[in-house]
Amino acid sequence: MKTKAVFYHAGCKVCVAAEKIVAAGLDPARYDLEVVHLGQAKQRLPEAERAGVKSVPALVIAGQAFHINHGADLSALK
Amino acid sequence: MKTKAVFYHAGCKVCVAAEKIVAAGLDPARYDLEVVHLGQAKQRLPEAERAGVKSVPALVIAGQAFHINHGADLSALK
Repeated sequence: MKTKAVFYHAGCKVCVAAEKIVAAGLDPARYDLEVVHLGQAKQRLPEAERAGVKSVPALVIAGQAFHINHGADLSALK
Repeated sequence: MKTKAVFYHAGCKVCVAAEKIVAAGLDPARYDLEVVHLGQAKQRLPEAERAGVKSVPALVIAGQAFHINHGADLSALK
């Protein structure tokens, strides 16, 4: 069974680089990747916060939040 | 031809999680991953700095530095 990976972003330049290179670089044989634009899908903000996401871009894998560089704080997206 | 990916770390707890889940999660069909412990291989510090690495853990892929959460600043490893 594949591990769920969720990439949260806000369309920013830093986010796009992280999505194209890191998130999309994950092994598709082992990870199911979902990409969530938190600027557009604001209803997903609470879920991201519960997972420990403080800023975007971030990857949540196996319940752990990995912030990749810094594009915007979640508070700026509310 | 595979893309070179270098994961820089310093053995810290934050580094280990990033290595196990993000760096080791990269698709081996597309990426050649090298893992560098900057606390032990201090001669690699200049190369990491030139690639834009400011802190560990960090992944450098295709010339771009991606800092994954924050374990230690490079300056603390010198």
